[in-house]
Amino acid sequence: MASAKQVYIGIIGAGGVGKAFLSQLELLAKRPSGPKLVLCYISTSSKSLYHSNYTALEIPSAISQLQANSVGAPPALPKVVEYLASVPGGSKAVLIDNTSSQDVADSYPAFLSRGVSVVTPNKKAFSGSYKLWQDIFGAAAASGAKVYHESSCGAGLPVISTLNDLVATGDEVTRVEGVFSGTMSFLFNSFAPTEGAGGKWSAEVKKAKELGYTEPDPRDDLNGLDVARKLTILARLAGLPIESPTSFPVQSLIPKELESVASGDEFLQKLPEFDSQMDEVKASAEKEGKVVRFVGSIDVTSKQVKVGLEKFDRSHPIAALKGSDNIISFYTKRYGSNPLIIQGAGAGGEVTAMGVTSDLLKVLSQI
Amino acid sequence: MASAKQVYIGIIGAGGVGKAFLSQLELLAKRPSGPKLVLCYISTSSKSLYHSNYTALEIPSAISQLQANSVGAPPALPKVVEYLASVPGGSKAVLIDNTSSQDVADSYPAFLSRGVSVVTPNKKAFSGSYKLWQDIFGAAAASGAKVYHESSCGAGLPVISTLNDLVATGDEVTRVEGVFSGTMSFLFNSFAPTEGAGGKWSAEVKKAKELGYTEPDPRDDLNGLDVARKLTILARLAGLPIESPTSFPVQSLIPKELESVASGDEFLQKLPEFDSQMDEVKASAEKEGKVVRFVGSIDVTSKQVKVGLEKFDRSHPIAALKGSDNIISFYTKRYGSNPLIIQGAGAGGEVTAMGVTSDLLKVLSQI
Repeated sequence: MASAKQVYIGIIGAGGVGKAFLSQLELLAKRPSGPKLVLCYISTSSKSLYHSNYTALEIPSAISQLQANSVGAPPALPKVVEYLASVPGGSKAVLIDNTSSQDVADSYPAFLSRGVSVVTPNKKAFSGSYKLWQDIFGAAAASGAKVYHESSCGAGLPVISTLNDLVATGDEVTRVEGVFSGTMSFLFNSFAPTEGAGGKWSAEVKKAKELGYTEPDPRDDLNGLDVARKLTILARLAGLPIESPTSFPVQSLIPKELESVASGDEFLQKLPEFDSQMDEVKASAEKEGKVVRFVGSIDVTSKQVKVGLEKFDRSHPIAALKGSDNIISFYTKRYGSNPLIIQGAGAGGEVTAMGVTSDLLKVLSQI
Repeated sequence: MASAKQVYIGIIGAGGVGKAFLSQLELLAKRPSGPKLVLCYISTSSKSLYHSNYTALEIPSAISQLQANSVGAPPALPKVVEYLASVPGGSKAVLIDNTSSQDVADSYPAFLSRGVSVVTPNKKAFSGSYKLWQDIFGAAAASGAKVYHESSCGAGLPVISTLNDLVATGDEVTRVEGVFSGTMSFLFNSFAPTEGAGGKWSAEVKKAKELGYTEPDPRDDLNGLDVARKLTILARLAGLPIESPTSFPVQSLIPKELESVASGDEFLQKLPEFDSQMDEVKASAEKEGKVVRFVGSIDVTSKQVKVGLEKFDRSHPIAALKGSDNIISFYTKRYGSNPLIIQGAGAGGEVTAMGVTSDLLKVLSQI
């Protein structure tokens, strides 16, 4: 086995995922086997820490050092590409993108074509234009650099690796269905529980926001775009050339009248006026003995992707979900009528970072 | 990336899994990228096909050629080790063991120490003596050869890879629990369904046997040893030095009086006399509003492993299982109160072979 003696790591992003990743990286760096890991670059949108001679940064303290006043702004992305592509001694470098930045995502082809592997939970690269998708995987194939993005759907849950394995081993994936948003999961498990009456819709949205389960403006969850992005990624991996996350039907749960109110706070304040709409949705499902859930589905055979409300029997695994868990069901030719199901927390710094770290381990085993 | 130009594949076993694997290997061999795959050896317990100069065997027709009368007996295992360790041109070789043979399992350290990677669904190697386990992973670590065995628990379900990722990224696995036997799943989902009365125990065992869901002698399922073997593997991966699958409590569902009857047929004939015992078990669970299931569990914190009957609320995912599906729940520090759950078919030639093929892909990406 050819294994690089040391591998250089560059990290962009030092938020919740970035912090959790750094403590997992510290553990990894202490492994007795495998290549030596050298953290040589870390940046946020406003600051960066690196040495032109690639001196290793201290892993545990990198983020606190980054926050010091004396630390300068990050270089432009092409400079970061050049820096990581030029690590010393014929070593390899890996970029860890722990942001949700479109700009960083747009630069993956540049990193990859220069031999820098990319590991990221950033959905933007894989759910943006189809051309960017092709450029990313084309650049990786040409240079041999690796690109892994397990945490771009379902955080650390083994969703993308499983879909890739199904496809690569020749199974025929016919349908993918699930609850892909922790926020939507929490909202509907509370609003339309399988047992009991559930709360008012607007009250549940407010509670979710207070618990930190929503974006600062809850409309960024309720518009369905986050789920549409994840569906775009999975559909493409299943072989459908989806153009963008807005090229298929996505149901928004934002009342038309509240789409243009100025702030998330104003939205939350006015939302109770529209509770009757969601009550109707709930009642209509109950009349059939069912509950309503916000799901995404990919019908690979008919090439249909959609995101929105659907009704499920109370005993259906999607209905029986707990808390803010995600659930993803893969229906395939080999698995027959009962799908392969993966379920669990699909958001949160620690589990998202776990997906990033296990992807990094895969890269390290190959470069 | 250093990638071998060609990789030699040796296969032992040509039963249901072996046949399904061969057709998946045929697909893999046609991939435009990756190393060229050369099938150079295939054998059953009585026959073998190979050329001393390593001429490639035809993948699609290898099994039918193997069945020809003129084909000779396989060489002794040390000769197979020597053969695969000596592939030409500095290439690498991978042994695929699609048997459930203890002898083949016992020879993994010899293959691995000579640089031959091993991919297998064979439980025997990983659930036998703890010394064999240590010898296998020790030999792999020393030579750099790879060993993967996803299908040794839950067939193609991503059970072992997920547990390995949790451990490798520093999560603390506190508990693993689930239904690990397709046979037991089918039996209890029919005998004690969440809705309706269910059938008589002996009738369900008979039906399972007729459907091909049991071993030729159903006692080989009912003794719990298959589940105990899987638990041994997972417990060891979670860090517990389990000595053997008989070193922890395993509840057998074979009535004492029928343990020594001569045949599976005689067992099935006499089983109805003991239906009242299982009826009592079912009634006792029903009294608590629960259903009974045959589960395995590993409490990593208290180092307790056990296999046997347990009661579950009807809404519990383990109770709600369908058909002959497996379900495996990982409770960890990061995932908190809701476990990471993997569910789906855990037996069958096609899905078992899928686990073998995706393991082979992992090996190919690393050698």
